Amino acid sequence: MSLVLDAAAQDLLFREARTANTFAAEPVTEEQIQAVYDLVKYGPTAFNQSPLRVTLVRSPEARERLVGHMAEGNRPKTATAPLVAILSTDNEFHEELPRLFPHFPQAKDLLYATRPARERSALLNGALQAAYFIVGIRAAGLAAGPMTGFDPAGVQKEFLDDDHTPLLVVNIGRPGANAWLPRSPRLDVDEVITTV
Amino acid sequence: MSLVLDAAAQDLLFREARTANTFAAEPVTEEQIQAVYDLVKYGPTAFNQSPLRVTLVRSPEARERLVGHMAEGNRPKTATAPLVAILSTDNEFHEELPRLFPHFPQAKDLLYATRPARERSALLNGALQAAYFIVGIRAAGLAAGPMTGFDPAGVQKEFLDDDHTPLLVVNIGRPGANAWLPRSPRLDVDEVITTV
Repeated sequence: MSLVLDAAAQDLLFREARTANTFAAEPVTEEQIQAVYDLVKYGPTAFNQSPLRVTLVRSPEARERLVGHMAEGNRPKTATAPLVAILSTDNEFHEELPRLFPHFPQAKDLLYATRPARERSALLNGALQAAYFIVGIRAAGLAAGPMTGFDPAGVQKEFLDDDHTPLLVVNIGRPGANAWLPRSPRLDVDEVITTV
Repeated sequence: MSLVLDAAAQDLLFREARTANTFAAEPVTEEQIQAVYDLVKYGPTAFNQSPLRVTLVRSPEARERLVGHMAEGNRPKTATAPLVAILSTDNEFHEELPRLFPHFPQAKDLLYATRPARERSALLNGALQAAYFIVGIRAAGLAAGPMTGFDPAGVQKEFLDDDHTPLLVVNIGRPGANAWLPRSPRLDVDEVITTV
């Protein structure tokens, strides 16, 4: 009642969307990923710093290398999902800041001069963008399977460089048979929200 | 074309939604916040750990205390927004894990036995949930004004405890006059997405 978003969109993005563990064979196209990005790129970050980077693992050879760095329980689905994306942060995002936030070009040097300051900011803002990306995958009618169960150092060494930190690996596709566990309980509103 | 989500919902959540810097006087109700939570609580986190906590700053006395910990440029909007929320992580989220993820009750002790492991996980997953919360505020037809410009130690001491780490402070309400800056540019898809 209190929401403006229509019920079908609520279901698509949150209420009926689930983390898929199995996937149908249907491929995920470049057009779908472009459309997801063109939507979720507008999600807010601090000073529009936009630190999220996405590595699409499409070749069988790259997929095999990635699977070797996943936790045991994540290997079968990472091997068989139609598309897998490595989400990472660019810890040198400040180089683009004068272009990305022309209202306050001093931010680059005032706030993000040191690497630790950038890493902390890129982690928080990159994670915000990772969530927008997951919502965007669902907006495309696809299921996402975000995973933290992987060897970050191995994934970084294999696919990224010293300036990029892996955040999540996400399986993407249409759900397959028995794609999910029963929905787990959520915290009650009183356990999460307090008023002062 | 490639998205299933209808165009009005795309606009509401991403394309026309903006970070508001001024707000109309109209209050934000408990019912709206409940509806937002009841929608976004379904967003995925690792093992459904759900570490995000929300402190709604409603009393004038609490608002004044909060404003004192905000960066100079964030004070006027934090003082005048109809509602302000402190988003934080619960670094002791593992206590609820056996209830929240009954499929794998060992996660509590296997993965989250140490405080540093919990803090890192709560930061990543709490930030994912913070983004779902921002999307949810927009789903209620409201504008969000997320801010990282505040003194985290001061906000923690004033409103939280040693087990909770502040992530974001978010102004919430209907946008007021001149509510936003011109939209800043986004990175091109080729700057963000690479394929291997």
